[in-house]
Amino acid sequence: MTEDSDRHAKKMAKKKAARDKIMATKTGEKGLVIVHTGKGKGKSTAAFGMIFRCIAHDMPCAVVQFIKGGMSTGERDLILSTFADRCRFHTMGEGFTWETQDRERDIEMAQAAWEKAKELIRDPDFRMVLLDEINIAIRYGYIDAAEVVAFLAAEKPEMTHVVLTGRNAAEEVIEAADLVTEMELVKHPFRSGIKAQIGVEF
Amino acid sequence: MTEDSDRHAKKMAKKKAARDKIMATKTGEKGLVIVHTGKGKGKSTAAFGMIFRCIAHDMPCAVVQFIKGGMSTGERDLILSTFADRCRFHTMGEGFTWETQDRERDIEMAQAAWEKAKELIRDPDFRMVLLDEINIAIRYGYIDAAEVVAFLAAEKPEMTHVVLTGRNAAEEVIEAADLVTEMELVKHPFRSGIKAQIGVEF
Repeated sequence: MTEDSDRHAKKMAKKKAARDKIMATKTGEKGLVIVHTGKGKGKSTAAFGMIFRCIAHDMPCAVVQFIKGGMSTGERDLILSTFADRCRFHTMGEGFTWETQDRERDIEMAQAAWEKAKELIRDPDFRMVLLDEINIAIRYGYIDAAEVVAFLAAEKPEMTHVVLTGRNAAEEVIEAADLVTEMELVKHPFRSGIKAQIGVEF
Repeated sequence: MTEDSDRHAKKMAKKKAARDKIMATKTGEKGLVIVHTGKGKGKSTAAFGMIFRCIAHDMPCAVVQFIKGGMSTGERDLILSTFADRCRFHTMGEGFTWETQDRERDIEMAQAAWEKAKELIRDPDFRMVLLDEINIAIRYGYIDAAEVVAFLAAEKPEMTHVVLTGRNAAEEVIEAADLVTEMELVKHPFRSGIKAQIGVEF
């Protein structure tokens, strides 16, 4: 072993010892309230990644799409065609709210999605329930943040993970969550005239 | 229509017009260099979400795992068992580097993974190639950032998307990328003694 690699081995051994010590204290298990927010990409994509992880582990899960982008249909089709036995899928919205221009209908849609979400979360068979883009529905005032937080505290089964995505997550929701990630936009190709592309955005 | 919903409709119509105008200028299509970095969760998960999107659209794709976590095997198993026809999967590492304490072997592993990555990227049949955790291998000096950037500039087929994940992405890599997202850790349950859980972390 060279001196350099010896130093490296010592450094890594120290890191490993520190990490093992920390990990030994992490013994709890519980259903988490997980929030993906921020202006960057990957909020829904990472949430769907967790849904695919659940599918991989044969953990029953469910998705409620609060706002249909009209584009992110890849995952939806794959789930419906291949994994309908393991994942329930509900698309409740009818396009982004700025494409409908009808506040009453948007509220009705969002409320219907929230009722469906509550029903799925109450069912302890589901190990993960993804509420996709619910943060936007809350932000627009279509669903009450305090009601969402109160419901999760009172009725979410202990072992169920609930994932809430969408930019501008409400302060109350972040407060109530166990795991919050903010996706920050560092650089985006839209700025140089590149359109949304298959496989990347949808 | 109430006055409130009338105001809402006008506001939304204006938003839609503005958005449509912006989107009309986005007409380009090209293979992107995409980076997911930052200390937060979701870097690999969102990247795997894009891989599942490609699978959903029947776009051939490939994954090279530079550092095997030993845990995030859910997606790997699902891809190998169900989608091996659409996604090539290579796990080159043998556990996180602080678990091996052997710098020579780590470098050898990382270089072998990089050779495999180059081979896959050069093949224009693959529409997306995910280099999972390559940023860590670059950070440790196992792979040269300048070489990665030069290779992508010179040899990446125009329509191929290449995704590089891992915290501490090198400045040169961020500079060369088209789309960069930083996942920021806002709140993490490890802090309150919760361990890594199935379906969430792996």
